[in-house]
Amino acid sequence: MNNKGPGFFITLEGIEGSGKTTHARRLFSFLEEANVPSLLTREPGGTPVGEKVRELLLNPESGAMDPLTETFLLEASRREHVTEVISPALQAGKVVICVRFTDSTLAYQGYGRGVPLSHLHCLNNIATGGIVPDLTLLFDVEPEVGLARSFSRTEEKELRFEKEFLANKEFLLAVRDGYLQLVKEYPHRFMVVNTTEHSKEEVFALVRETIWQKLEKRG
Amino acid sequence: MNNKGPGFFITLEGIEGSGKTTHARRLFSFLEEANVPSLLTREPGGTPVGEKVRELLLNPESGAMDPLTETFLLEASRREHVTEVISPALQAGKVVICVRFTDSTLAYQGYGRGVPLSHLHCLNNIATGGIVPDLTLLFDVEPEVGLARSFSRTEEKELRFEKEFLANKEFLLAVRDGYLQLVKEYPHRFMVVNTTEHSKEEVFALVRETIWQKLEKRG
Repeated sequence: MNNKGPGFFITLEGIEGSGKTTHARRLFSFLEEANVPSLLTREPGGTPVGEKVRELLLNPESGAMDPLTETFLLEASRREHVTEVISPALQAGKVVICVRFTDSTLAYQGYGRGVPLSHLHCLNNIATGGIVPDLTLLFDVEPEVGLARSFSRTEEKELRFEKEFLANKEFLLAVRDGYLQLVKEYPHRFMVVNTTEHSKEEVFALVRETIWQKLEKRG
Repeated sequence: MNNKGPGFFITLEGIEGSGKTTHARRLFSFLEEANVPSLLTREPGGTPVGEKVRELLLNPESGAMDPLTETFLLEASRREHVTEVISPALQAGKVVICVRFTDSTLAYQGYGRGVPLSHLHCLNNIATGGIVPDLTLLFDVEPEVGLARSFSRTEEKELRFEKEFLANKEFLLAVRDGYLQLVKEYPHRFMVVNTTEHSKEEVFALVRETIWQKLEKRG
């Protein structure tokens, strides 16, 4: 069942420093200026309980966490996010722009950390109640380029993931490959945007154009 | 797969004020005095991440939480508890005494809050990696008797569940019935102890005798 209502659900995915948050903000401003009712949100977080879970997940003091513990916390945050934020906005007919969603769990915890994908599909499905994005933009970037961008602007207290990734470049390569695998599996909803080779302006022109066409098609 | 090692895994279940924590402590002291290597622990909690999740769950400020969000948080705490505490102790041959485990999730979130049992079996199984108790003691008590006991000693900041239960006695009745349903489904590992009709001393004599027999049988 897909109880997503009359809205349009866009997710932005990609590894650290791929540009997804920047483009999510620009897309949101663009839609607001065009008077399209929209909502901008992100995972993990987006609700009071979700923000507390986010703190727990991103705090370097939490150290190396069991991959399944991490997954359960992410799914708790997601469940709250879906019921409190995403689903009501879609029911109200809004365009929901969400930075990271279920594909992040498949790419990071699945392809990256080795949690069985069957477990993750089960958990994602329970957490979302079957809501699936209408469109997923994958911002693809070379891991080293992305990490360099991300390090320059993330606060120290939220660097747990970045520190781990730096120590283990294989991990980010596996995550990136995981994302590209997901594109092959779900080609109907994925669009890949190469952000290593194109300028920010070029990337955004492409994003804007794609979304505009999709929304016009929806009527 | 049940990778529980050479130890013996005892869980104590029941609604608020049923006496499970009191008897868990007495049982632990009894085994220590008898020089049986033992570990006493509880859910939610038992690890640094688990205690933070416990705070989030029991804080009255968290308000009415979506039942699945609550379940994911409990399973995160359980996963950490199993990998960090329970499984290593069982591998080391200890008797593990745990207050609340997977049956609490089935009774409260399933029979009490209406989360589909199939979801909960899936989540419990992923969180525990298939570890199942060797013996589960269900401390059965009338909800009103139990709540009166529980209210008299719980700290204000941890009263979220008790407050909700008082406002909704049907809920605790459903949980209690759920537990009795689980006894029917898993008779090989459940033992019911009636704590309304028997004195603390009588109850503990029964618990001690049962466990001693089980441990002797194990050799």
